[in-house]
Amino acid sequence: MEKVNVYEKLSTFSDYWSPKIVGEMSDWHVKLVKLKGEFLWHLHENEDEMFMVIKGRLVIKLRTEDIVLNEGELFIIPKGTEHMPVAEDEVHVMLIEPKTTLNTGNVKNERTKEHLEEI
Amino acid sequence: MEKVNVYEKLSTFSDYWSPKIVGEMSDWHVKLVKLKGEFLWHLHENEDEMFMVIKGRLVIKLRTEDIVLNEGELFIIPKGTEHMPVAEDEVHVMLIEPKTTLNTGNVKNERTKEHLEEI
Repeated sequence: MEKVNVYEKLSTFSDYWSPKIVGEMSDWHVKLVKLKGEFLWHLHENEDEMFMVIKGRLVIKLRTEDIVLNEGELFIIPKGTEHMPVAEDEVHVMLIEPKTTLNTGNVKNERTKEHLEEI
Repeated sequence: MEKVNVYEKLSTFSDYWSPKIVGEMSDWHVKLVKLKGEFLWHLHENEDEMFMVIKGRLVIKLRTEDIVLNEGELFIIPKGTEHMPVAEDEVHVMLIEPKTTLNTGNVKNERTKEHLEEI
């Protein structure tokens, strides 16, 4: 059984908006992702989703407010809640979400990642 | 909806081996806990459990090996796996585990926490 060093894992890739799987527990995945720029408005019909900022600053836009996350801050987006992540500069994020979670949620387009790499 | 700053939340309590709930997603809890000293050998029959070290150094003893976790390192203990956390000095930990998870697992004694505080 292996531990995961999130800093080390984050140093192994540089692409944005492409979550990598680093662990699993029951039907949930632990993922790491680098974000920069704007994503798209979407929601996850059935999945709550946790964002935790490892490095940098992330804004999670909701329809009602902006949630600003700095290092050591986490936010759980309840299922059914429209959101759009925005990163002015590069941000490193840990995601914890059900294995069924698609990055673009209810939207499918060229940014959708159907198959995630395990690192 | 509120974000959670783990450093700020950790500054609000000082007792050891008493996990506090800081978030929930579906049937899972996000908890923070401070550990110091030895816990006890136990296992969780039905729950995978994630430990992530926020500050300090934690040893998770397994029957087969010791897993040493420093800041930014996480480890998922599969259900059914005997383990004993040991912290030589104070360590701050984030736990992510099903809501059904009891801190002492299959053991019930004076260290068992039946009802966890939400902070």
